[in-house]
Amino acid sequence: MPDTEMNGAESLVHTLLANGVEVCFTNPGTSEMHFVAALDHIPGMRSVLALQEGVATGAADGYYRMAGKPASTLLHLGPGLANGLSNLHNAKKAGSGVVNIVGEHASTHIALDAPLTSDIEGIARPVSHWVRTSDSAAAVGRDAAQSVQAAMVAPGQIATLILPSDTAWNPGGVAQDAIELPTPAPFDESQLSQAAQALDGPETLLLLGGGALTENNLETAGRIAAKTGCKILSEWSNARLERGAGRVFVDRVPYPIDIALEVLKPFKRIVLLGARAPIGFFAYPEKPAILTRVGADILTLADAGADHAAALSALAGATGARETPPAHVSDPMLPDRPQGRIDPESLAALIARAIPEQAIVVDESVTTGRAFAPATKGARKHTWLNNCGGSIGYGLPAAIGAAVACPERKVMCLTGDGSAMYTVQSLWTMARENLDVTVLIFANRSYQILRGELTNVGVGNPGPRAIDMLSLDRPALDWVQMSRSMGVEAVRVTECDALESALEDGLASGGPNLIEVVL
Amino acid sequence: MPDTEMNGAESLVHTLLANGVEVCFTNPGTSEMHFVAALDHIPGMRSVLALQEGVATGAADGYYRMAGKPASTLLHLGPGLANGLSNLHNAKKAGSGVVNIVGEHASTHIALDAPLTSDIEGIARPVSHWVRTSDSAAAVGRDAAQSVQAAMVAPGQIATLILPSDTAWNPGGVAQDAIELPTPAPFDESQLSQAAQALDGPETLLLLGGGALTENNLETAGRIAAKTGCKILSEWSNARLERGAGRVFVDRVPYPIDIALEVLKPFKRIVLLGARAPIGFFAYPEKPAILTRVGADILTLADAGADHAAALSALAGATGARETPPAHVSDPMLPDRPQGRIDPESLAALIARAIPEQAIVVDESVTTGRAFAPATKGARKHTWLNNCGGSIGYGLPAAIGAAVACPERKVMCLTGDGSAMYTVQSLWTMARENLDVTVLIFANRSYQILRGELTNVGVGNPGPRAIDMLSLDRPALDWVQMSRSMGVEAVRVTECDALESALEDGLASGGPNLIEVVL
Repeated sequence: MPDTEMNGAESLVHTLLANGVEVCFTNPGTSEMHFVAALDHIPGMRSVLALQEGVATGAADGYYRMAGKPASTLLHLGPGLANGLSNLHNAKKAGSGVVNIVGEHASTHIALDAPLTSDIEGIARPVSHWVRTSDSAAAVGRDAAQSVQAAMVAPGQIATLILPSDTAWNPGGVAQDAIELPTPAPFDESQLSQAAQALDGPETLLLLGGGALTENNLETAGRIAAKTGCKILSEWSNARLERGAGRVFVDRVPYPIDIALEVLKPFKRIVLLGARAPIGFFAYPEKPAILTRVGADILTLADAGADHAAALSALAGATGARETPPAHVSDPMLPDRPQGRIDPESLAALIARAIPEQAIVVDESVTTGRAFAPATKGARKHTWLNNCGGSIGYGLPAAIGAAVACPERKVMCLTGDGSAMYTVQSLWTMARENLDVTVLIFANRSYQILRGELTNVGVGNPGPRAIDMLSLDRPALDWVQMSRSMGVEAVRVTECDALESALEDGLASGGPNLIEVVL
Repeated sequence: MPDTEMNGAESLVHTLLANGVEVCFTNPGTSEMHFVAALDHIPGMRSVLALQEGVATGAADGYYRMAGKPASTLLHLGPGLANGLSNLHNAKKAGSGVVNIVGEHASTHIALDAPLTSDIEGIARPVSHWVRTSDSAAAVGRDAAQSVQAAMVAPGQIATLILPSDTAWNPGGVAQDAIELPTPAPFDESQLSQAAQALDGPETLLLLGGGALTENNLETAGRIAAKTGCKILSEWSNARLERGAGRVFVDRVPYPIDIALEVLKPFKRIVLLGARAPIGFFAYPEKPAILTRVGADILTLADAGADHAAALSALAGATGARETPPAHVSDPMLPDRPQGRIDPESLAALIARAIPEQAIVVDESVTTGRAFAPATKGARKHTWLNNCGGSIGYGLPAAIGAAVACPERKVMCLTGDGSAMYTVQSLWTMARENLDVTVLIFANRSYQILRGELTNVGVGNPGPRAIDMLSLDRPALDWVQMSRSMGVEAVRVTECDALESALEDGLASGGPNLIEVVL
């Protein structure tokens, strides 16, 4: 159709498609009705409806991590964006690219200060790298293409495009063809020889993050470790980590501050490759926030936006490690089959035994999951996603996004009960889209992590009212009813045998299912 | 205890209590643990736990409307605030006062850009009238007192106080005594005689809002209407409207734009008293956004922040209406008892018949509820709360706040299924606090309002994909299981008889209960 007959909304959809954006996680309202209409008659965009915008933005985060390209979200005005803000925070910290399309009142309506009027740019800015309000139907196509470009700046950015409804309904839309997408920046070659020299034994650490955690790049890191004797670790939170039998295993810098300090203490020299220097998640009275030893020599070879594959390859060359067989390759070894009542150790073993080949594991297990990493080391090959922004409620939505990005792979979502309640509406979207997701809810019926944090901040002996404010057992959540109410089949288990069967059935079902693990 | 032994968190709790803030709706995290500890050992603050911050902020909105003074919220860093943002938007538009306490990292930690670090002031500003970050433990008491003062500026404001965790844990806190609270501004006396002259018959409208909608003020408005022959109306969305038998009935400016234009067309002169001049909720192509007739003479006697009682009393004096018996007093008349399958009309009749004396009705019924106002005119005396900011998900949380503010009154929450899903976690808090709330879910299994909006924006014949994006029936939500999963007893009804019994039982139960009304 000739451009002149297109309205702004239609130019938006054509432009997103031309630039590789094929999925829209959405909860639209009146001001987005022209996009809904455009999505109706322009084929190619998969629209996934969410019952709350935090589901939509979290799904876009998970999608980017697995697809390597952004999804769009379609959000209703400032409040719709606001509901999605905390998972955009998580996406931003994960380096995920997201293209948010936010409807705005027609330009003429904004001055009237209607009930839904708000400062949308102001709401967007704290979580966005790029914010723009289109000023005409003719500008929408160009702005949309540039928003995709902004979202693809390595490792991935949050782009928020605000579209007044008259820019959507007015004629004169111009669809934009594919525009050039940015590539990662070069790594810091000036640091290469110094980095190679620094890696001279067990007192040095090669700390990996971001794109360094692919199967191939980890193999290169394993060669460097074997050749130089250096240690390798990853950050605590990783957007995407490839793991399992036959791959180079990399442990994470621990979350609990005292253990992290202990683990990092030996390292006099640290080379950062896609990772940031380790700091505490929180500050605590009388404890350091910088987790590396005092006076450690920290060298950044490649920051978050750099080409991590090139940096690792060059480092392998500079250390003469290219042909060295990699260290830390995981043997295909599953834990013994546990029995009896489920505890964190048996849980880790059962999960490790169940992970299907090429599964995607979305991990928001908080306290319960600390035993999972060593246990799953030798499991079948899988991909592990962490919450990188610390705002709970990322897990269920990210599982949606991962499943939409990789329909041929199975997704396991491991989540605490407190976290899962934040975006519990996700279950309905899983049912609606019949996504191949097995959700494990770890029902410890408390914000368990905060009980430890009370002690960490110096509250040694919390009273009953403090304990009550961290407890979720009054009433206990019934996850089986919760899940079924949204169309997702569910079971509750307390014994190892039951969990083993539930995992087997759930993973074989091909659709969404939920297992409440009572701890 | 001497001030010098107090930490900042303790000075906060003492100061809030001294300034009349007695309730805290909360979801705390690590950075708020010292407040949790302070709440533990300082008696007087009722802490109400929410599983998502939108529940906490919406509850604070409902609380203010019924208590006439602010509650506090306690939110975890930027993302916790972000989750509460859309209901703060609603509270802001309702003129509700809220004191948000948001934890921040310790000052020394912010520069390290930890995973949860964000621009908290930036997130707060679009929905807040007042934002401050305390700079020391010694400042917390003073800042807290001023935040209450800011929240009490008429009709009520959003105050956000950000407390770095070291200001909470450091000693040197100074509790602040009660400080002077602001009173409403005087109304615009210079407009009084002109306003009195303008009210000269059926071509003039006295448009009421805010504080003009109390029982006494409505009675005064009824006297003015009787004396002058003017019409009275209220805004479409009212933060709090007193209704029922023996009170002066005031109709609302309709939501659907064509009907609103029709209703407002006769009025050549409009006097605003606590209300704003009527505008459309949204802009639509080819339709006006200003709903009053072209050239109408609009006069503001009292804006949102003014003393509405004084303005009405003065206007009654100036029109000689002080002793005139009021017009539009509702007779105590209930609709006939309907039978058969429930439809919007029979639903309205059954609700009208069931409303208990002095009940609080929280209304987020969107499309289903348009028949409720005339039907409930002669019901037992009750208070009606609307969503004033248009961001759905206000209803269940506001019902929590109303029930906490008025434990001796019964609360009915009327909500669409789409709206209720936004903050469905509210049900758990209702169960935990055993609140006397009867929730009616109108399960039309779609974003019904948006189907009309597609037409309004000019999409006459939506295709199957557009319809699907507005449908909630794939799968249908099972509200009975949903509610029970969070500890709230529930029934599903399709027939009038069943709804009548369910309402009777639910309202008599004294605790939370839910009725799924299948439409």
